[in-house]
Amino acid sequence: MRYARVSVGGRAVWGRVRETDVELLSGSPIDGDPCVLGTVRRDTAVWLPPVVPSVFYAVGLNYPRHIEHAGATVPDRPEVGYRANNALTGHRSPIVKPAEVEGRFEAEPELVAVIGRTIRHATYEEARKSVFGWTIGNDVSARTWQHQDRTFWRSKNSDTFKPMGPWIETDVDALAQTTTLRLNGEIRAAFPTGDMVFDPFDYLVEITRHITVHPGDVLWMGAESTCRIEPGDTVEVEISGIGVLSNPVQLEGNQS
Amino acid sequence: MRYARVSVGGRAVWGRVRETDVELLSGSPIDGDPCVLGTVRRDTAVWLPPVVPSVFYAVGLNYPRHIEHAGATVPDRPEVGYRANNALTGHRSPIVKPAEVEGRFEAEPELVAVIGRTIRHATYEEARKSVFGWTIGNDVSARTWQHQDRTFWRSKNSDTFKPMGPWIETDVDALAQTTTLRLNGEIRAAFPTGDMVFDPFDYLVEITRHITVHPGDVLWMGAESTCRIEPGDTVEVEISGIGVLSNPVQLEGNQS
Repeated sequence: MRYARVSVGGRAVWGRVRETDVELLSGSPIDGDPCVLGTVRRDTAVWLPPVVPSVFYAVGLNYPRHIEHAGATVPDRPEVGYRANNALTGHRSPIVKPAEVEGRFEAEPELVAVIGRTIRHATYEEARKSVFGWTIGNDVSARTWQHQDRTFWRSKNSDTFKPMGPWIETDVDALAQTTTLRLNGEIRAAFPTGDMVFDPFDYLVEITRHITVHPGDVLWMGAESTCRIEPGDTVEVEISGIGVLSNPVQLEGNQS
Repeated sequence: MRYARVSVGGRAVWGRVRETDVELLSGSPIDGDPCVLGTVRRDTAVWLPPVVPSVFYAVGLNYPRHIEHAGATVPDRPEVGYRANNALTGHRSPIVKPAEVEGRFEAEPELVAVIGRTIRHATYEEARKSVFGWTIGNDVSARTWQHQDRTFWRSKNSDTFKPMGPWIETDVDALAQTTTLRLNGEIRAAFPTGDMVFDPFDYLVEITRHITVHPGDVLWMGAESTCRIEPGDTVEVEISGIGVLSNPVQLEGNQS
C-alpha cells in the first residue's frame, strides 16, 4: 500500500494512493485504521512530506564508495545524526537555493525508513518489524557551508533542503532495490539501495539501546553518490519499488 | 503568566499555573486563547515538558567563561545545533543514567526561549517579539560519549537527558536574571543568565536568514558552568523570575 499526505484546502490530509486517485483518510495509517472520507485526483494532488517526524534521524557515511570518495574511514559502529523538520518539503515542491550559497550545491538520494511502532532495546527482528514503510529523501547540501560551519544547521537544514516523498510504500523489499539519481532526465548515478555498511535495522538496534524511537520517526539512510544541482534544474530520485521524488530547483527571490 | 503541560489520566493537557492550582486549558496558549476546563492541585501535578517542539535548537559555546574552560575560541557568529525530542522529560521526572556510561556525567543549566510566532528573515525587534515565554533546561551530557562519538546522538540525546520545565513564564526580563545550579540543595554554580556571547534574538536573526522558525520551537541558550551528577542526587536549576527545574538522578535498571 502507498500512503501520502496531500494538501486539501490548505490542510494536510493523509491519503491512500491508488491508480488514478488519492483516497482521503480520516487519520494516520501509522496510528490506526482510518476510514475513507473522499478522493482527489492523483494527477492534480498537492504532495506534502508524507510524515513530519518527532525525531528526524539521518545517517552520514553509510555507502562504501561514498566513504572512499569523501576520504573518510569506514565507521565501525552505526552512529546517527539529525536533520530538522523546517527543511522538509514535498514531491514537486521547489528546492530553493539561497542567494548566498556559493560553491557545490548538491543532491543526495536516500532511502528513508518510516517507523510504525514504539521501540526501545530492540532486537534486529523487532527493529525489522518496527518499520511501517519506506519513502525517498533528497539530502540537499551546500558544501561550502558544510565545511565552514561547526554544525549542519544551514548547510543541510535550510528551508526546502529536505524533499521527502512522494509517498510511503509499505510492501517492498527496500534493501533489494536500485536508487537512481536523474538531473533533467539524465541519469547521474545509480547504485544498489542495500549496499550499506550498516542497514536500517542495525541502526535501530544501536539507537534503541539508549533512545526510544516513536511511530512517525524517520531514518534517512545516506547516499552512495551525489550530483550538483542549479536553479532551473529538475532533480529526480527514484527507488525501484517505491517511486520517484521529483523537485525543481529555484534561486531564492526568483520563486514563482 | 505561567503555562505548563501536565499529565491528566495519561493525557498531556495544557495548564495555567496559579498559586495553589493548575487550571486545565482546552488547548495551547501559544496557538490561541484557550478556555479553562477544570483544575488540578499544583502540589500533586505531574509535570510534562512544557512544549514538544517541531525543531529543538540548542546553542553550544555561548558563555565566555564556559568557552575559556573548554579551551575553545569565542564564536564570531551565532551558529546553532540541535537536540532530539525523545530526550525531553518534565520537572520532577528522573534523569536515568545509562548503565554503560563511564566518566563525567554532567548537568548544564540553561535558559530556554519558547517561540510563539512564525518568523523568517526576522529583524532583532521581530525576533524579540516572537518569543512567547521562557523556561529552563538541563542539557545533561555524558562526556566520554561526547568525545568518542562523531555526533551528540547518545551523549546528549539519550532518553531523559533533556529535562525541561517546570513551566513557561511569559512575563520576565529573562536576560536580567540569575541562573543557579544546585546539587542536593548545595549551590554548585551561579551566573548572570544574560552574560552571553550572542543573545537569543541574535540567534533568531541569524537562524531565520535561511530557516523558518515556528510556534512551539525552542532555543536552548547554553550554560556557563556545569556540575557532575550521580544516581541518588537531586539536581536543581533555578532561574530567578522563572522557577526551579528539579530532577532526581537514577541508575538505569534501578528505576522505581
